[in-house]
Amino acid sequence: MKIAIAGAGAMGSRLGLMLHQSGNEVILIDRWPAHIEAIRNNGLIANFNGKEIVEAIPIYSPEEVIKSNIQADLIIALTKANQLDGMFQAINSIITEQTHVLCLLNGLGHEDVLEKYVPKKNILFGITMWTAGLDGPGHVTLLGDGEIELENLEPEGEAFAKEVVAVFKDAKLNPTYSSNVRYSIWRKACVNGTLNGLCTILDCNIAGLGEQQPTNDMVRTIVAEFSAVAEKEGIELDQEEVNQHIQATYDPDNIGLHYPSMYQDLIKNHRLTEIDYINGAVWKKGQKYDIPTPYCAFLTQLIHSKEGLLAAK
Amino acid sequence: MKIAIAGAGAMGSRLGLMLHQSGNEVILIDRWPAHIEAIRNNGLIANFNGKEIVEAIPIYSPEEVIKSNIQADLIIALTKANQLDGMFQAINSIITEQTHVLCLLNGLGHEDVLEKYVPKKNILFGITMWTAGLDGPGHVTLLGDGEIELENLEPEGEAFAKEVVAVFKDAKLNPTYSSNVRYSIWRKACVNGTLNGLCTILDCNIAGLGEQQPTNDMVRTIVAEFSAVAEKEGIELDQEEVNQHIQATYDPDNIGLHYPSMYQDLIKNHRLTEIDYINGAVWKKGQKYDIPTPYCAFLTQLIHSKEGLLAAK
Repeated sequence: MKIAIAGAGAMGSRLGLMLHQSGNEVILIDRWPAHIEAIRNNGLIANFNGKEIVEAIPIYSPEEVIKSNIQADLIIALTKANQLDGMFQAINSIITEQTHVLCLLNGLGHEDVLEKYVPKKNILFGITMWTAGLDGPGHVTLLGDGEIELENLEPEGEAFAKEVVAVFKDAKLNPTYSSNVRYSIWRKACVNGTLNGLCTILDCNIAGLGEQQPTNDMVRTIVAEFSAVAEKEGIELDQEEVNQHIQATYDPDNIGLHYPSMYQDLIKNHRLTEIDYINGAVWKKGQKYDIPTPYCAFLTQLIHSKEGLLAAK
Repeated sequence: MKIAIAGAGAMGSRLGLMLHQSGNEVILIDRWPAHIEAIRNNGLIANFNGKEIVEAIPIYSPEEVIKSNIQADLIIALTKANQLDGMFQAINSIITEQTHVLCLLNGLGHEDVLEKYVPKKNILFGITMWTAGLDGPGHVTLLGDGEIELENLEPEGEAFAKEVVAVFKDAKLNPTYSSNVRYSIWRKACVNGTLNGLCTILDCNIAGLGEQQPTNDMVRTIVAEFSAVAEKEGIELDQEEVNQHIQATYDPDNIGLHYPSMYQDLIKNHRLTEIDYINGAVWKKGQKYDIPTPYCAFLTQLIHSKEGLLAAK
């Protein structure tokens, strides 16, 4: 299969590497000049479960892609959420009528962006439990095992989605064809929509958040807002299960001692957050469906204010 | 007039001093042993508009008050909001059927506390624009001019309220008998209910808050919640005027460079805040009147969480 990885960060590099190893025509697309140069000169260098491997994979900037004649059967979207639109605008030329897009980004609302560039019947959504770390330009660390769950957005996409599952299986990516990937996406968004924003605005780790008396009520209110909006999109979240899953993360033996990715982006590295694609997306969808989502709205506003105060870029 | 100042911090000391100077029988009541000892040994020492003055005023702890035969015509309440109940419980013995209480605390909901100790017809409310600083035990700095607006809670209290105005006038406290002091109290609570909580949770000064793009919407939403609840208590806030008044504070030539008192309490000194008497009071009243106040609720929860994380006392 001709596969383009749009956004070759840590996770994009993992998928690119494993799909290239199993014989697909893979290209990587990224905007980071040092990363492009390193991979072009030395190949993608990975610590793959303790063994160093080098995989020579073509890599392009979006501008180079436009000038090429490259076309893709499948584009796997793995940009930062706020770079998805710009990336697809830039690589529009590789999209044919047959091109499908598999969106593996965290968060909500990405279909609104993708539908501008690809017909809905050609869109797949997925969620992955694989992990990956970017050590520097051209270097990644890929440890442990994972899974990918994916599904077509429209019924017409089922045959192609199942082809992708077969290709991923050959690449040992442990894929599952899901009958309800959107449930899993919303469930994961609830976790991010509580832990990320609250730990960031309160400047604490997950265990610290869990210890505060008001946390249970704040989390339940946010999950209820996600749930009310999800229902309008045909997803019936099991709020009790989601709340218990979130509570379990507070345990220091679970991920309690971690600072969520949004905290690391904003408080540690003064980078813009993905809040618009988590609580902000629920707020926006809530306005569309006339469902009040004040906690999501206020949390989005607070995080944007903090971005401004820290001059995040 | 026999006047007891319940809570002889900076503002209580100012009123005690000025009312004592003008010939009233004033006593101070406070819980801070070093402050009591200093005033007892050396008098209350004030930098009064640049001139050092010493005023010998009796000062007692609440426990000493109980053992004494002191009674008061007027008790001026100037404790911290969360110490009001404890103070009145402790000094119950000086309250007779004739005793009136003038509450000058910032924030909302204090009538619920005071009504436990004094009949409603004996309660006055006021708001002051005087300033005062506590430099250390027994030492205060009292600069500039100010005003006090006050009013009886019930019609029967009018005659006594006007007596108090006359006494305050003799003390040069620039009093006004107000026809709507509760409007002024709610208006001031709106200012505290936006600037205090938002600057504290965002860790910024007032100008920094004012520069953020979401601030206008956050402030308007909070003021709208205050307004909806105030309406149920017969107060029709002019939201537009309040919002413009708050906006004007962002100017560095106004109070923009200041960090609000809640910021100083919690972030600087790790002390518990008065959030329960500002946004928390609106949230509680909202529940009583069945009016949603999600921004006030969430802000109260966030501030309490931050108190927990900073081990505030």
